[in-house]
Amino acid sequence: MERIVQCVPNFSEGRRTDIIEKIIAPLKDKKGFKLISYESDSDYNRTVVTLIGNVDSLIEPLINFFSEALKYIDMNKHSGEHPRMGAVDVVPFIPISKITINECVEYANLLAKEVNERFSIPVYLYANACKYPERENLPTIRSGEFEGMKEKIKENNWYPDFGEAKIHDTFGVVAIGARMPLIAFNVDLNTNDEKIANKIAKMIRKSSGGFQYVQAGPAYLADKGHVQVTMNILNYKKNPIYRIFETIIMEARRFNVEVISSELIGLCPKDALLRSIHYYLDINKIIFNKDMSIEDITLYSIKYLKLRGFSKLKIIEAHLGE
Amino acid sequence: MERIVQCVPNFSEGRRTDIIEKIIAPLKDKKGFKLISYESDSDYNRTVVTLIGNVDSLIEPLINFFSEALKYIDMNKHSGEHPRMGAVDVVPFIPISKITINECVEYANLLAKEVNERFSIPVYLYANACKYPERENLPTIRSGEFEGMKEKIKENNWYPDFGEAKIHDTFGVVAIGARMPLIAFNVDLNTNDEKIANKIAKMIRKSSGGFQYVQAGPAYLADKGHVQVTMNILNYKKNPIYRIFETIIMEARRFNVEVISSELIGLCPKDALLRSIHYYLDINKIIFNKDMSIEDITLYSIKYLKLRGFSKLKIIEAHLGE
Repeated sequence: MERIVQCVPNFSEGRRTDIIEKIIAPLKDKKGFKLISYESDSDYNRTVVTLIGNVDSLIEPLINFFSEALKYIDMNKHSGEHPRMGAVDVVPFIPISKITINECVEYANLLAKEVNERFSIPVYLYANACKYPERENLPTIRSGEFEGMKEKIKENNWYPDFGEAKIHDTFGVVAIGARMPLIAFNVDLNTNDEKIANKIAKMIRKSSGGFQYVQAGPAYLADKGHVQVTMNILNYKKNPIYRIFETIIMEARRFNVEVISSELIGLCPKDALLRSIHYYLDINKIIFNKDMSIEDITLYSIKYLKLRGFSKLKIIEAHLGE
Repeated sequence: MERIVQCVPNFSEGRRTDIIEKIIAPLKDKKGFKLISYESDSDYNRTVVTLIGNVDSLIEPLINFFSEALKYIDMNKHSGEHPRMGAVDVVPFIPISKITINECVEYANLLAKEVNERFSIPVYLYANACKYPERENLPTIRSGEFEGMKEKIKENNWYPDFGEAKIHDTFGVVAIGARMPLIAFNVDLNTNDEKIANKIAKMIRKSSGGFQYVQAGPAYLADKGHVQVTMNILNYKKNPIYRIFETIIMEARRFNVEVISSELIGLCPKDALLRSIHYYLDINKIIFNKDMSIEDITLYSIKYLKLRGFSKLKIIEAHLGE
């Protein structure tokens, strides 16, 4: 049984395309996983890689990827707008199918140990893999960035989880961890009044007392002429999409506003959609079949969550030829 | 303008009725506030007093109440099932009307200072009045109880907020603080399946990812033959009653279950009901009048929240003759 993860390494080169190609070469056309995309930003001077596949197939290619990044990136010469502390800056393992978050934590530890032993790169474990609460949040670990880590790593609180209290001279340090898939979900309202989107965002987001795994804010879509509640769902098992969607519909009513559509940004695990489809089939007294096809998941998601611009290619598992 | 609080002192005597009467005498028939109830439990050996009124009228009578408790209670001779650490064990100030939680914190500090200066009783500030995160939670402060506090108070972490690191020989120590009103709200489901109530409770409560200020669990009402989701709402401004009620209705649908009624246990501030009435009038396009009568608040609350066993006497402000 294949244990499928998403893995999203970020590395600190977003300008020199020849170098970018060399660094990602070990991740291209390999057995057991797919390189879904690599997106470089020259202002950030950073590239975000998206890999999906069998977690066991990933480790050795990731080591080779670290080796290339080490070869071609000197952090002493790096500048960019995005905060960073290492040539490879962060590597999260994200459970997608038939694997738990705790197993992903084990793989994060495995990769961290290898990276440290082979290259003497200090590693911090973060997110669900963290061993200390102050290392859960990546920006907390990374504050001070590459330049500041030279001293920070010597502090008692910041001794790395793998390696010695000294950064790698040219590579810096890296954070490796495991986290739940993040779902970027936006709900469109038939009004141009951003205040209404803001009020609803406050009602549902964690920071003002709402759902624990929801970040939310307002956005105005100038090209469409309406506002939306724009969200990150940090744990779709505990805060399923349908619950948030229905709560927004419920709250919008008091402003005499309707939810007209919604959108998912980036990729979404099948399981996140199935959980919401399950709710809507239940209330419509239609039997739920957890093994329904990707095509059915796509149709039901569009029907019930009013998704626009949606296709099966937004579903992670569609890329695995399931 | 009267600033109305609820104040709920708990003291460590629940058996000797003559002594209980002497201790509460300073709180009876005073100007500016009402003694709503005092409930003694002989197993607990503890009495819970409920006061409502103008916060400025309360301080001097509370000092006199402390003085009587000090006179008649020797904690070395006290035993009971409820955890306790002082003759007066805890005094919370709760904002009801025209007063903020921060102003209540100031009154908690004022009372704490007076109690310490007049009687040499050490005071811990708790809940919203706490100065250290580990003092937010009363049971954390109180663990060890009267007997254990003799040593605990000497620890660096447990130096009292007012007074010296030594308990009062007969009185012990007291916690004084400020907190939001707690609303005990139960929603009845037309099923006898406690598992369904439990599933819904998990969906909405903080501890499993739901609303930040909601504690919830299942209960089976044997006399009525149905289950309910039983809740404490710790902050009705951030998690208003209607939002929780509507979310339960939404989630119950998938189990083919309906919400048949609800109930409020104990007293509820007018503002908590008005906020929910406001939502329902909005969605029905009826103009909301925040100065509606207590009778209208009662009728609308019954209509929209399906409250059973409800009357205006459940509303705190009804007791103030407003």
